[in-house]
Amino acid sequence: MPAPTSAVPQQVRIALGERSYDIQIGAGLLGAPAAWQGLPAATAALVVTNTTVAPLYAARLRESLTAHYGTVHEVVLPDGEEHKDWQTLNLIFDALLSKGCDRKTVLFALGGGVVGDMAGFAAASYMRGVPFVQVPTTLLAQVDSSVGGKTAINHPQGKNMIGAFYQPARVVCDLDTLKTLPPRELSAGLAEVIKYGPIADMDFLDWIEANVDALVRREPAALAHAVKRSCEIKAEVVGQDERESGLRAILNFGHTFGHAIEAGLGYGEWLHGEAVGCGMVMALNLSRRLGLVDEAFERRVTALVARAGLPIVGPDLGAERYLSLMRVDKKAEAGQIRFVVIERPGQAAVRSAPDDVVRAVLADCTR
Amino acid sequence: MPAPTSAVPQQVRIALGERSYDIQIGAGLLGAPAAWQGLPAATAALVVTNTTVAPLYAARLRESLTAHYGTVHEVVLPDGEEHKDWQTLNLIFDALLSKGCDRKTVLFALGGGVVGDMAGFAAASYMRGVPFVQVPTTLLAQVDSSVGGKTAINHPQGKNMIGAFYQPARVVCDLDTLKTLPPRELSAGLAEVIKYGPIADMDFLDWIEANVDALVRREPAALAHAVKRSCEIKAEVVGQDERESGLRAILNFGHTFGHAIEAGLGYGEWLHGEAVGCGMVMALNLSRRLGLVDEAFERRVTALVARAGLPIVGPDLGAERYLSLMRVDKKAEAGQIRFVVIERPGQAAVRSAPDDVVRAVLADCTR
Repeated sequence: MPAPTSAVPQQVRIALGERSYDIQIGAGLLGAPAAWQGLPAATAALVVTNTTVAPLYAARLRESLTAHYGTVHEVVLPDGEEHKDWQTLNLIFDALLSKGCDRKTVLFALGGGVVGDMAGFAAASYMRGVPFVQVPTTLLAQVDSSVGGKTAINHPQGKNMIGAFYQPARVVCDLDTLKTLPPRELSAGLAEVIKYGPIADMDFLDWIEANVDALVRREPAALAHAVKRSCEIKAEVVGQDERESGLRAILNFGHTFGHAIEAGLGYGEWLHGEAVGCGMVMALNLSRRLGLVDEAFERRVTALVARAGLPIVGPDLGAERYLSLMRVDKKAEAGQIRFVVIERPGQAAVRSAPDDVVRAVLADCTR
Repeated sequence: MPAPTSAVPQQVRIALGERSYDIQIGAGLLGAPAAWQGLPAATAALVVTNTTVAPLYAARLRESLTAHYGTVHEVVLPDGEEHKDWQTLNLIFDALLSKGCDRKTVLFALGGGVVGDMAGFAAASYMRGVPFVQVPTTLLAQVDSSVGGKTAINHPQGKNMIGAFYQPARVVCDLDTLKTLPPRELSAGLAEVIKYGPIADMDFLDWIEANVDALVRREPAALAHAVKRSCEIKAEVVGQDERESGLRAILNFGHTFGHAIEAGLGYGEWLHGEAVGCGMVMALNLSRRLGLVDEAFERRVTALVARAGLPIVGPDLGAERYLSLMRVDKKAEAGQIRFVVIERPGQAAVRSAPDDVVRAVLADCTR
């Protein structure tokens, strides 16, 4: 399947009635006037970014926004998952209030998943809701976290435990920002790209296998296609189940094990995408042990995860620690852990599993 | 108009499509099985209350809930508006997580407006949303804050600045709980009852004038009618404008001045209802100065506020301090304060006003 070139901006629509919005995907969008037209009007905007992204891209975004907002404020958060907490969230509220921002103020989340999740939750909560725009600058955020309206912060006892479903007014994915991404973060984003294959689209899995080296080399056409197809699949799922009452949970493939790795090691030790990559390997092992997929499929996806530069062996936290961490996962019900498994290649489901089987998975996949 | 007796439980419906719910009003509802049937199913419930209310009513509520939930947890917050902050909100999240509460857990807000606002925001945010039930035990919460889905906490720089629109699954108003209310808090609740007259219903204002002494004496039939009619008016307004894009703002009559009093003196110094009572006097003075109502009407409502046991003279914070506090009100836009004024008796509107006129109001109404 030939991938389109990145020079042509593309749009993916998230259809959610009056909360519908577009994802714009293309090279150079930060400085492209068309990307910033037609957003909610206000006297002021606030760009929320972090110490890593601000020196690279904040000036370009602010320049584009100056045409639309009388004042463009900025708040720069410390970088990293370990800062995805109340204290850092409050920096956004402090900035909004000290600058006298009213309830029409538009927030722009410029950065990766952590910035997007925090700016989104701040937008959901400030004066009970102001508009916001996602401007993801990492592959992970472009293909997953900036799309669909999940916002949250972490609690010491669990990841993303405090948050809101709150849709952005637009998502603008400037593919050029991926050029400055550290290799480890590019791989972390590829974990969420790979995810869409086993859960929803085997043709896409074939395409990723054929193009994973081009993706690791950051070939623009390959990245453009990966971002667009990932957003299309996510748009379809979110359009059917905005608040995760059913289907949407399949997007958490690899995340139950992954969240346990992140929490067990301390947030920020592994990148979220690294934990998800390894978590998918574990979830595939579980799916095979439950008799849903064969060993060849497990090996195939595991090999692809490894080729993307991701870990396929989890840290040895001890099986009981994994189990207790997974019991506070948001999908758990009445103390029972619920896993996203692959029912058959291209289709996922949510299931519980006997603790003994989970222990066998952990024995296979951690060291 | 004869008021119904409190022995007959009454229902008021909040019509908001799939988010519709009932307000149940009656004596003895805490222990009435019918009040607790048909709520969302879950293995666990969490009663959120405070140090004042817990010893009075928590056991009775928990007993009623035990029939429906396997486990009924409880978290007791410190009492008072000065605790309506992040730190106290986190006590709810800590309790939910340490008890392993999943995303079906139902929260019950047992207490006044502060407990309801905080438990409601915790419910809106925990795992991105769990169901909650309002069980208001103060007159103010029964006639106003528990109805309509406004939840929030305060920020040092402004009241209710961080929150969500999040509707409860039900509101249960047990009129018996008003028997233990301190007189100052009863008066504070009457401020919000009186409010509904000038903004929406002159017949109700007539009724309050005729019954204010009975209300202060807590005659059950009078309280029952006051709560029911207040909820009916609020239901009608909220049903038309859930997220306060227009009409709903009239419910903030007295609140712009009132919030400035609360913030200027420090939260908790005056009760919210006391500040609203005095704020209504100020807003009426402003309405008269803008040529909207006559002095007789201003005097009439001011006298009623005084008869309810509420302050009608504001603290002397200085006009500039009032103005700067009011500029961070949520209704302000582009730095311009927006006041709820009485356009004519029984009808309110939102307007800005020249600073000089506001200074004249403050000169009249503060000392």
